[in-house]
Amino acid sequence: MFSFLLHKQSQNSHARAGVLSTAHGDVLTPAFMPVGTLASVKGLSPRDLKEMGTELIVANTYHLFLQPGTKVLEAFEGIHSFMAWDGPVLTDSGGFQVFSLGLGKKDKQVRWSAGNNDQKLAYEIKEDGVWFKSHINGDKYFLTPELSIQIQESIGADIILAFDECPPAGCGYEYTKKAMDLTHRWAIRSIAVKNRKNQAIFGIVQGGIYDDLRTESAAFIRELSTDGFAIGGLAVGEKKPDMHRVLDVLAVELPPEKPRHLLGVGAPEDLIEGVRRGIDIFDCVLPTRLGRHGSILRSTGKINIKNARFTFEKKPIEETCSCYTCKNFSLAYLQHLFKAHEALGGYLASYHNVYFLLKLMRKIRDAILKDQFEGFAEEFLQSYQR
Amino acid sequence: MFSFLLHKQSQNSHARAGVLSTAHGDVLTPAFMPVGTLASVKGLSPRDLKEMGTELIVANTYHLFLQPGTKVLEAFEGIHSFMAWDGPVLTDSGGFQVFSLGLGKKDKQVRWSAGNNDQKLAYEIKEDGVWFKSHINGDKYFLTPELSIQIQESIGADIILAFDECPPAGCGYEYTKKAMDLTHRWAIRSIAVKNRKNQAIFGIVQGGIYDDLRTESAAFIRELSTDGFAIGGLAVGEKKPDMHRVLDVLAVELPPEKPRHLLGVGAPEDLIEGVRRGIDIFDCVLPTRLGRHGSILRSTGKINIKNARFTFEKKPIEETCSCYTCKNFSLAYLQHLFKAHEALGGYLASYHNVYFLLKLMRKIRDAILKDQFEGFAEEFLQSYQR
Repeated sequence: MFSFLLHKQSQNSHARAGVLSTAHGDVLTPAFMPVGTLASVKGLSPRDLKEMGTELIVANTYHLFLQPGTKVLEAFEGIHSFMAWDGPVLTDSGGFQVFSLGLGKKDKQVRWSAGNNDQKLAYEIKEDGVWFKSHINGDKYFLTPELSIQIQESIGADIILAFDECPPAGCGYEYTKKAMDLTHRWAIRSIAVKNRKNQAIFGIVQGGIYDDLRTESAAFIRELSTDGFAIGGLAVGEKKPDMHRVLDVLAVELPPEKPRHLLGVGAPEDLIEGVRRGIDIFDCVLPTRLGRHGSILRSTGKINIKNARFTFEKKPIEETCSCYTCKNFSLAYLQHLFKAHEALGGYLASYHNVYFLLKLMRKIRDAILKDQFEGFAEEFLQSYQR
Repeated sequence: MFSFLLHKQSQNSHARAGVLSTAHGDVLTPAFMPVGTLASVKGLSPRDLKEMGTELIVANTYHLFLQPGTKVLEAFEGIHSFMAWDGPVLTDSGGFQVFSLGLGKKDKQVRWSAGNNDQKLAYEIKEDGVWFKSHINGDKYFLTPELSIQIQESIGADIILAFDECPPAGCGYEYTKKAMDLTHRWAIRSIAVKNRKNQAIFGIVQGGIYDDLRTESAAFIRELSTDGFAIGGLAVGEKKPDMHRVLDVLAVELPPEKPRHLLGVGAPEDLIEGVRRGIDIFDCVLPTRLGRHGSILRSTGKINIKNARFTFEKKPIEETCSCYTCKNFSLAYLQHLFKAHEALGGYLASYHNVYFLLKLMRKIRDAILKDQFEGFAEEFLQSYQR
């Protein structure tokens, strides 16, 4: 029920175009996945997602475990029928959320270097798994690789991920290696309990910004014969040059015939740089989060919709864009909605932003198929102001 | 550019079916108008409104005057192009908002009886008009009948209302009469300055819960030869029997050949009772406000989506409903969205609630045309638990 077929490999870079086939349909790659954390891509309906050409979405195991919980999801035989989305779904393993939600933003660097079993933290890592406190009500849970897979089987995604420990940027070589080794042991346990034939599983490559650890992790996960690879630990505070270098390393270390997912990446320039280094799928809350806050993506860069220059602007966000928002609404109207705190503003901006990234991925794929990816990438990066 | 044609007059009640023709299209009556306070029906897009069969929406002069302001609206030649809604629009005159937003909810009764020129109030009524403080930033404005019409011409609605004073329930006979007399003088001034041929104007009938004042007000406004009538002061705290009795009075006092708008009414049972007494159009924020708070309309009454009995419920809100929400989503999923504070929940609930009222009005119209309105009304009121 799962396969990955390469349609084209670029000559001048690692960029490639292909198709992922899942139990719920095909996904042309490279692809961007909107994030439906709680079985809902924030503010957008399933038909909005279909209309804009979404082929694959991500949902979060940690969040869905806490609410609505596995009993509800099982009653619906999984997330597809629960959220009325009949297309492919990928779930993360919950590891990243446990760690990221367990740390106050301010404390991330400080507390981590003090050791990860600090009593003040909302979680505690053991060999067996991780104790964490629910961010909703403080209840304690023990999440293990086995439980993560069990939850992901209840959710019923088409692609699931092995349980991992994702340390933040700046935690140092020794800790990063320790987390990587644990991730490897957890990957073995995740794969051992995975049962369902209609779910593919990706192993997660960790190793921080250290080339030797990344090489080691890629080699280890490769041996486990998972259906694909997810690359963690590159969107949790790392510098761009480090991310690019690590992706260069992985581009040759990972076997070309299997799909590669770069976790948590979605800024337009990062999509280009990721594809260039052989990444096939991406996920990120960026387009909907930016949209809710009135930050809108254009091919020349982001704009803040509240800028005074838009108050009387009759043009849409982009005249060349054919999304619902751009075909119908002016920048002046969008500004008004945001100033007046009307929910429609966040909806229309999110709609456009997700559409923008999906369209960017379609253009990238088209360029790869025509052997024009490098030219396209250069042109895009030159006009897109970061 | 404006006409009202009666298709059918019920035999056993004042209920009637007809069609309003405006510069932006026809509206079959009786009709319910979703409220687009700030040029947006909260959470719903224009295509949602079209899809569910909305033929007429209301916008608020007071709110649009403060933001985006008339300059922006004029740059777009009116609200239709600004909000991308090409159907008919009605605007209120701003009077109701000035008074209702100027009073803290707690103080409504107390302060009013202390006299309406209380310094603590956010507005002050003069013969010429009313001083009010913006609820956004406290800036002072002087709204007159002339300015109200001027703003409504900038907004460019198909139907506009004369400026009125709408006193709250419980302000007593003397004050109600004073407010009514002022409303009459303001109606004359409103009509005198109205300029645009493609806008119809409705006079507002006031007079509180006093039959003699209502008779007097109806007679006065009737003489002004407006295109129709709006009935104010029946949705600001009055008791239901008073509302019904006053509507009974007006049913015979207002000329049958002109349309009648009951301001601010939208509960299902009130729509039935209004139609029974000759009302043609209604407006209310109820379906979207309820929807945002997880209160959902069904033909057996309202439900609270957070009720535990829905946690595993796979059925939609109503199996007989063919709205987008009911055709795709379960009660369990809706409950999950509300518990998880996902914006999609408010959207799907609002969508259904507005659809529910529009469908109710279509059924009412159908029953009138078939001379079966009384039977339909009785059946509906018996099954709908208030």
